[in-house]
Amino acid sequence: MRFQTSLLVRFGDIDHAGVVYYPRFFNYVHVAFEDFFRQGLGSPFHEVIDGRQIGFPIVHAESDFMKVLKYGDRVLVEVYLVGAGHRSVTFGFDMIREEGMVLAARARITHAVIDRRTFKAIACPEDLKEQFLRYREPESGSGSGSP
Amino acid sequence: MRFQTSLLVRFGDIDHAGVVYYPRFFNYVHVAFEDFFRQGLGSPFHEVIDGRQIGFPIVHAESDFMKVLKYGDRVLVEVYLVGAGHRSVTFGFDMIREEGMVLAARARITHAVIDRRTFKAIACPEDLKEQFLRYREPESGSGSGSP
Amino acid sequence: MRFQTSLLVRFGDIDHAGVVYYPRFFNYVHVAFEDFFRQGLGSPFHEVIDGRQIGFPIVHAESDFMKVLKYGDRVLVEVYLVGAGHRSVTFGFDMIREEGMVLAARARITHAVIDRRTFKAIACPEDLKEQFLRYREPESGSGSGSP
Amino acid sequence: MRFQTSLLVRFGDIDHAGVVYYPRFFNYVHVAFEDFFRQGLGSPFHEVIDGRQIGFPIVHAESDFMKVLKYGDRVLVEVYLVGAGHRSVTFGFDMIREEGMVLAARARITHAVIDRRTFKAIACPEDLKEQFLRYREPESGSGSGSP
Repeated sequence: MRFQTSLLVRFGDIDHAGVVYYPRFFNYVHVAFEDFFRQGLGSPFHEVIDGRQIGFPIVHAESDFMKVLKYGDRVLVEVYLVGAGHRSVTFGFDMIREEGMVLAARARITHAVIDRRTFKAIACPEDLKEQFLRYREPESGSGSGSP
Repeated sequence: MRFQTSLLVRFGDIDHAGVVYYPRFFNYVHVAFEDFFRQGLGSPFHEVIDGRQIGFPIVHAESDFMKVLKYGDRVLVEVYLVGAGHRSVTFGFDMIREEGMVLAARARITHAVIDRRTFKAIACPEDLKEQFLRYREPESGSGSGSP
Repeated sequence: MRFQTSLLVRFGDIDHAGVVYYPRFFNYVHVAFEDFFRQGLGSPFHEVIDGRQIGFPIVHAESDFMKVLKYGDRVLVEVYLVGAGHRSVTFGFDMIREEGMVLAARARITHAVIDRRTFKAIACPEDLKEQFLRYREPESGSGSGSP
Repeated sequence: MRFQTSLLVRFGDIDHAGVVYYPRFFNYVHVAFEDFFRQGLGSPFHEVIDGRQIGFPIVHAESDFMKVLKYGDRVLVEVYLVGAGHRSVTFGFDMIREEGMVLAARARITHAVIDRRTFKAIACPEDLKEQFLRYREPESGSGSGSP
């Protein structure tokens, strides 16, 4: 199962080359991650990090970029779990240009799980892990947006 | 006297129209404000706000835009005090495209002065006010960058 | 009549003071302006500027800031026409924190109207002007979000 | 040989967690890449892309994040060539917190080389490739900022 959210490429997302400035793809990733918590898990991200004091600092981020995105494009972002380690979780993000359903970028983000009061790594709380696992997808099985 | 700092228009500052996205002029203003504290006053902004717990929340911001800025432009930002109220200070920011010394934008930003522990407005501490006043400029007397 | 659109304050919108970085309020303004074209007028902004080659460069932007916005806040942005000059239009933007319906910021943005092929100011095309005027509001009559 | 440039963490670079928002590390990478062209190679990036019509779209970006960066931190960015393929180049970027010279993040960015008039991949022009190779560094030999 993949969580899906939809974004619009905004006027200010464009760079001097006339396409989305690549660091902003990672902003799209974060926005989708926040939507995933609020809409997919039913727990707004700020309740998890401020309320429960659980943090998800990024330890590794990567993305392949296949197609450019332009102003006015609508982008479907699909979020899924790639792997859950002892004290980390890795999510995949497929960014699909809705016109033609073309995979524009595919990101993998690895988060540590920490107690924000001590900044120490902790095992991912069971209730969250269980919810994450509902979105698990083997890395080989690429979904609807695969090239 | 005006404080001067110099910026480069970056690849990601450009928008779909091929010029600096106008909200980013206000980012340039803030960057120049931080440089003004560090280099002009000799007190890095984070020492003032985190160390002394004095905050400068913006209560009003405005800017006129005369000329566009493009990728690769070097921008001279001149910072000066427009007025000091009882519990607020207003700074002017002239953003001058260095090639041809053309005034591209002129902003006025009014900051409240607060105690960050109580979030209450306070009179601007005397030592800071004295330093600010060295950069005072009557609003009518527009400087080197005037159109 | 006001056009309304809703935004979420995102993780990356926050600054070192723990509230929305004030230049990003102007980004919210631009996002709402784009939504206004797409949803309010039924003409996506990129069709107007790229298709019809009509541009709306900002000549003046200002905002009062009354309340801070924090991470997770939902923000209602109300868009209305403040005035239509010969070759310019001025829009108002009320940014209202939905919890408690508190007016957080009120911006006024004046756009020139230009032919993007010549970069010359032009009279606002009649069809657009007519549509804008449906959202006209006298400056004194502040709406639901007034303080 | 590594190219070095220095950045300041700005007020608006911080996110809700009180540290640099991770997508902005990729912005630092791009800023350093632009500095590398201007100062390291003596060819401002806009002269290469607009003048010579050579583009460097990103096809892959990744970064490890070891330490957080906070407001006021000064960051040394070291730029070096990791590899030069037939129609692509990969650069490394070490982002080092100057206080204590601690490696905060290490990015690898792979750029295609294209003719911007045709958007076709091309072999990297010899003069640029020669300049890039002066900054070559074997991936195993990590530099001064290694952990």
